[in-house]
Amino acid sequence: MAGLHVRSLLVTGANRGLGLGLVQHFLRMPNPPQWIFATCRDPKGQRAQELQNLASKHPNIIIIALEVSDPTSIKAAAAKVGEHLGGSGLNLLINNAGIAKPNSLDNETPENMIQVYTTNTVGPLLMGQAFLPLLKKAAQGSPGSGLSCSKAAIINMSSYAGSIEDMYVWDFGQVVSYRCSKAALNMLSRCQSLAYKEHGILCVALHPGWVQTDMGSTGSFKPPLTVDDSVQGMLKVLSSISEKETGAFLDWEGKVVPW
Amino acid sequence: MAGLHVRSLLVTGANRGLGLGLVQHFLRMPNPPQWIFATCRDPKGQRAQELQNLASKHPNIIIIALEVSDPTSIKAAAAKVGEHLGGSGLNLLINNAGIAKPNSLDNETPENMIQVYTTNTVGPLLMGQAFLPLLKKAAQGSPGSGLSCSKAAIINMSSYAGSIEDMYVWDFGQVVSYRCSKAALNMLSRCQSLAYKEHGILCVALHPGWVQTDMGSTGSFKPPLTVDDSVQGMLKVLSSISEKETGAFLDWEGKVVPW
Repeated sequence: MAGLHVRSLLVTGANRGLGLGLVQHFLRMPNPPQWIFATCRDPKGQRAQELQNLASKHPNIIIIALEVSDPTSIKAAAAKVGEHLGGSGLNLLINNAGIAKPNSLDNETPENMIQVYTTNTVGPLLMGQAFLPLLKKAAQGSPGSGLSCSKAAIINMSSYAGSIEDMYVWDFGQVVSYRCSKAALNMLSRCQSLAYKEHGILCVALHPGWVQTDMGSTGSFKPPLTVDDSVQGMLKVLSSISEKETGAFLDWEGKVVPW
Repeated sequence: MAGLHVRSLLVTGANRGLGLGLVQHFLRMPNPPQWIFATCRDPKGQRAQELQNLASKHPNIIIIALEVSDPTSIKAAAAKVGEHLGGSGLNLLINNAGIAKPNSLDNETPENMIQVYTTNTVGPLLMGQAFLPLLKKAAQGSPGSGLSCSKAAIINMSSYAGSIEDMYVWDFGQVVSYRCSKAALNMLSRCQSLAYKEHGILCVALHPGWVQTDMGSTGSFKPPLTVDDSVQGMLKVLSSISEKETGAFLDWEGKVVPW
């Protein structure tokens, strides 16, 4: 991670899976961030215990309650992050929180469609809006005209399942609400990359691979990738991308994923 | 339209713009459909007057109230169409109804995002589910193993603005909620094409061109295409596509649009 020097970052859904893995890997960097804002829905709940334990040993982790489907919660979290940062900006916003429902096309419901879209697509839109002032500030405070994740960036955790071209593992799971939300998230990432470029903010959609998380595991099937391998790969990607890659859809090894 | 012989079809948003144009062109065919189910939100309203006038002259037009964002309304419409058809199926379902909100990325709201997604993406999903039995019936009643619009098909009216690759006319209008909904609709079309192929149903997403409709016209700008030219082009496309094109994203001239 020689190329990744992040003073502050925020990860949503940081209490488990890839979110927790990202926090752990940032902590292990030779030059760890000064602030790691680790957000989750219920920081006091049982499912945030591991994150709480980690934060008790690392004072640079700040746990913040955040429900990405709730605009009021997002605004409150942005205000809190701004207070912690004082006058400085936020370098990296990782929209990692996401949900999936295992429905097929035949039994997909409007309620599921809206709920998954609200969390996976509308959430990252509102996060971008709410944290834009802090991301702009980080970009303004960094030297050079190029884009980088060390300067200011939005990373949207997408999925190969959102590739319209590829229809990845369709026979394994139709997950229509999830696929539609991720295709829309990819579109949002492109919109953000075009609108935020002038502010010095890099935006990409990332496919983390098929990872051994609660979401990735279905029944007795064990996904091929560990959280560690996925996160290590993604951080290598983040350390290397620049303005050439803004608006791209990349996997955890840096390969371009078809739209 | 030598290749298009449709006994029954349904068009949503049929009271104006492209929907009304489609109804008019189907009426003018040498061998017009026996049933044209023309649906709109408010058949008795002022904005459905032209469709009402047309229906008074053409008894094969059946006007049905349908709000595609309302699952109950969709089910009621499907029941009515089934009654009219007696024992026969529906050949062609054209999910034409759609809405757009002119918001930019900065002022996009969760309410708009959800409303546009509900109409433009969830609507076509529910329409596909509700009319699947009638589409299956039409496919079963048609000879041959190939797919065609004369046999059984779902046409989702998409937009080049939903192309993530292209980001068509971004500088003209960011319309983030619309772009996200259409990218998701393209994903839905692919899902429908894969799931419904075994039932003999062809599914495509169509870009009608930039057309002189209420939606297409913004301020004093006059879009390049007339409704007639767009509809004529689309019907030519529908007459020629087969199983090779199911799951494709095509424009009104039959050209493949990038995802």
